Amino acid sequence: MDGSLSLAVSTVIFALRPHPRTRLPVLWVPLVRRIRQPHQGRWALPGGPLGAEEGLATSAARTLQETTRLSPRYLEQLYAFGGTDRAPTTAERTVSVVYWALVRPEEADAGAVGVNVQWFVADELPELAFDHSLIVEYALWRLRNKVEYSRIAAAFLGESFTLAELRGVHEAVLQRSLEPSNFRRQIETSGRLVATDAYRTGGRHRPARLYRHDRSIQLSDNGPLTER
Amino acid sequence: MDGSLSLAVSTVIFALRPHPRTRLPVLWVPLVRRIRQPHQGRWALPGGPLGAEEGLATSAARTLQETTRLSPRYLEQLYAFGGTDRAPTTAERTVSVVYWALVRPEEADAGAVGVNVQWFVADELPELAFDHSLIVEYALWRLRNKVEYSRIAAAFLGESFTLAELRGVHEAVLQRSLEPSNFRRQIETSGRLVATDAYRTGGRHRPARLYRHDRSIQLSDNGPLTER
Repeated sequence: MDGSLSLAVSTVIFALRPHPRTRLPVLWVPLVRRIRQPHQGRWALPGGPLGAEEGLATSAARTLQETTRLSPRYLEQLYAFGGTDRAPTTAERTVSVVYWALVRPEEADAGAVGVNVQWFVADELPELAFDHSLIVEYALWRLRNKVEYSRIAAAFLGESFTLAELRGVHEAVLQRSLEPSNFRRQIETSGRLVATDAYRTGGRHRPARLYRHDRSIQLSDNGPLTER
Repeated sequence: MDGSLSLAVSTVIFALRPHPRTRLPVLWVPLVRRIRQPHQGRWALPGGPLGAEEGLATSAARTLQETTRLSPRYLEQLYAFGGTDRAPTTAERTVSVVYWALVRPEEADAGAVGVNVQWFVADELPELAFDHSLIVEYALWRLRNKVEYSRIAAAFLGESFTLAELRGVHEAVLQRSLEPSNFRRQIETSGRLVATDAYRTGGRHRPARLYRHDRSIQLSDNGPLTER
């Protein structure tokens, strides 16, 4: 590398929470307000420079904890962004390795919120610092693709759940309604769910069977990599 | 980032070619022999330092072309490797952004081969420089997972192909035989293939219908990212 190069690590955290107007569950992300130039005052992804003696995932977890007090269980590398037009001048060129995580509402609630840290509806963000708007857009696109073929939805749910609850996660992520009997058939043929003997009771509806994911399939499977 | 940091870009290229002993198709990768320290004489992934004014994917394509003369159509970011134990000393710390690509045999044949550039059977590599053995292991693992749910196998095949040819790619990548009628059923229910009106004739077998992938599904879909 000729010239100066900085390496930063940032993280996109998604949680499902009710939309402030519609009350329907939608995706939210926490952002941190920049308190220095460039882009002072703009909202940005939590993150910071890579420490000299820390790995990438460790850096992501540390900077996330320092800025938002969040400690997700599920932190996965998303993408490295290294375009030459990311910083105002090439003298300040930065490559960002971005991690992402999905958290349950109760995990999200454990994070800090203040004048410089806030949660935003992911599809209704202000213009962010640097290329962070594009990064969130890419993370949303990846999430919406991934939810179709993986058990990623489980990260938003507890150990066991009804098919209606799982469908609710898919609908919230994909932002469209899914036909219940088609959804049930797709899930059943995927072979990824295990029916339990327990039922969700109470409420207006008849008891609904609880399912769990097949534990032989890893939630965040990095194969031969064991980065943390 | 405190201290000095280098950023390198490397690429893992996969092609399907006959195994030298069994003659069955297996995965091969091209490697470049290191001509300087550290790890002088060891085989390594093609790559090099990120240029001051080039993006990550551009750098991957350039260093691949310079070292092996290969220009794959399908080049995708795989993973950023940034552990603190990658280089012999922390003073030489390097973060590597790794791209990967699948090429057809005829594309692979167009690359340069010489005393310092050679193709190896991916599952029978010597010990590589730095952590490149782990990187290839991770790429193989990702490929073997991905082939199950994506149309990635098409990168190894021409525009149209028989189900037997497609099954051959899956078997070569997964290194296990697949039951023909199960494979046909899985492919047909996936909805990703389009039957053409053409047949493969000749040979010992009866004519076999040719299929192509549904072109509405992108081979290498980066969504909102258009890096090159």
